[in-house]
Amino acid sequence: MRFIDKLRKVSQKNNSLVCVGLDTDERKIPPFLKSEEDPVFKFNREIIDSTGDLVCAYKPNMGFYEALGTKGWEALRKTCEYIPSEIPIILDAKRGDIGNTAQMYARALYEVMKADAVTVSPYMGRDAIQPFLEYEGKCAFILCLTSNEGAKDFQLSMIAGRPLYEIVAEKVLSWNERGNCGLVVGATYPDQLKRIREIAPTLPFLIPGVGTQAGEVESTVKYGADENGELAIINSSRAIIYASSGRDFASAARTEALRLRDLINLYRPTK
Amino acid sequence: MRFIDKLRKVSQKNNSLVCVGLDTDERKIPPFLKSEEDPVFKFNREIIDSTGDLVCAYKPNMGFYEALGTKGWEALRKTCEYIPSEIPIILDAKRGDIGNTAQMYARALYEVMKADAVTVSPYMGRDAIQPFLEYEGKCAFILCLTSNEGAKDFQLSMIAGRPLYEIVAEKVLSWNERGNCGLVVGATYPDQLKRIREIAPTLPFLIPGVGTQAGEVESTVKYGADENGELAIINSSRAIIYASSGRDFASAARTEALRLRDLINLYRPTK
Repeated sequence: MRFIDKLRKVSQKNNSLVCVGLDTDERKIPPFLKSEEDPVFKFNREIIDSTGDLVCAYKPNMGFYEALGTKGWEALRKTCEYIPSEIPIILDAKRGDIGNTAQMYARALYEVMKADAVTVSPYMGRDAIQPFLEYEGKCAFILCLTSNEGAKDFQLSMIAGRPLYEIVAEKVLSWNERGNCGLVVGATYPDQLKRIREIAPTLPFLIPGVGTQAGEVESTVKYGADENGELAIINSSRAIIYASSGRDFASAARTEALRLRDLINLYRPTK
Repeated sequence: MRFIDKLRKVSQKNNSLVCVGLDTDERKIPPFLKSEEDPVFKFNREIIDSTGDLVCAYKPNMGFYEALGTKGWEALRKTCEYIPSEIPIILDAKRGDIGNTAQMYARALYEVMKADAVTVSPYMGRDAIQPFLEYEGKCAFILCLTSNEGAKDFQLSMIAGRPLYEIVAEKVLSWNERGNCGLVVGATYPDQLKRIREIAPTLPFLIPGVGTQAGEVESTVKYGADENGELAIINSSRAIIYASSGRDFASAARTEALRLRDLINLYRPTK
């Protein structure tokens, strides 16, 4: 099955565009979990159990696991194994290297970790992305326009009258021969999000940086989703997983995920 | 000690600009090592033992270790621990993410792995690099112009009459407030290497992609080194570590590293 079909299927089943970002920081999880053998995995397991029927994807953020060294890598592996197979796993890795190294990263993320999708950086060009595209059933989300302040440094640079991120979006569209490319587009720039959706109407968008204001969610859904109100994967990490720091953290995460799902659905076209 | 001073010190001691790239692929190491408990670490240890007096740095390539999962991560940790403390370790990671994630990557690479330097991608701009720059004694090598074919896709794009990689070089120079920035510049573009050295005369350059032709080495040294014939870190991976696939792999690696060191030194200014 193509990634995009897997995504659509669970997105329809759960009536959701919400992606829960598993940016699990050992220092921020509820204190009572710290006596567990693997507190990070235990935390993730509870979050997954309590939100699995409300999401279209999970997005573990590699940096948070790598910061724990070997045991973090192991916690991530167990987390990926635990996520129900119907729910796509997007590993937020932002890798990008020359061909033979990119092959290794693709093996690490797609074969060892068994992710369904990864995020990659476009700076080194197509041959740095190609090894990921060899996996037909997977999806590579290429950074296009990110939600951070530093996006201005290079992504907004004008090339022949057009910003770099538009050039990236067009190139990625031309790389999508097997239907396994996506774009990372921050929620913080609604006008640009709209423009990128016009350039790439059929690609899945991974959209981080959505806040809690209804207005921002509205524009993200309106401009980020495709014409059927699908193919937008709207990520929220800390607001969901750290909704409570007490023993009720999992149910608080569920409440917050449900709230975001329903808020998003307010702005999706009705069928 | 600043990274740049550590680099200069061992570079002078070993009279070398050679960096050995530890792109150690489990499938390519000599068959007789495969019965070892940790063949990748064993291979690296022998390479390090046989080349430690000929190099100015080692550059383990993260992808090759990640492809082995948890045990690869452990082999990398042991390798970093084993490298003599006077020799800088540059972890080729090409990370790049928003601030709180970049902090995690910096912790993983600088604190857990104890690297002296890392490679990072510029696409997300300064705030994605800043957490690495908080470590004063370390060095972040930012991708500028890479040696692969795909460099043409975006790095050569013209912005207000100048290629993107020049804009990156200038920005990085302005980020170098604590003297802990470097640039990754491929050896395959001598004219551009010259131009980037003009823009950033004082930054260390990590230079991959050097082949075996004397002419290419000459232009790399001439244009890549600073005015004292220093601060160029010329990387060779496969040509050194896979010089032989037999029991003599470590001595063959030594011969190849020595050959490259001496070839490079032919073109350095004499004092």
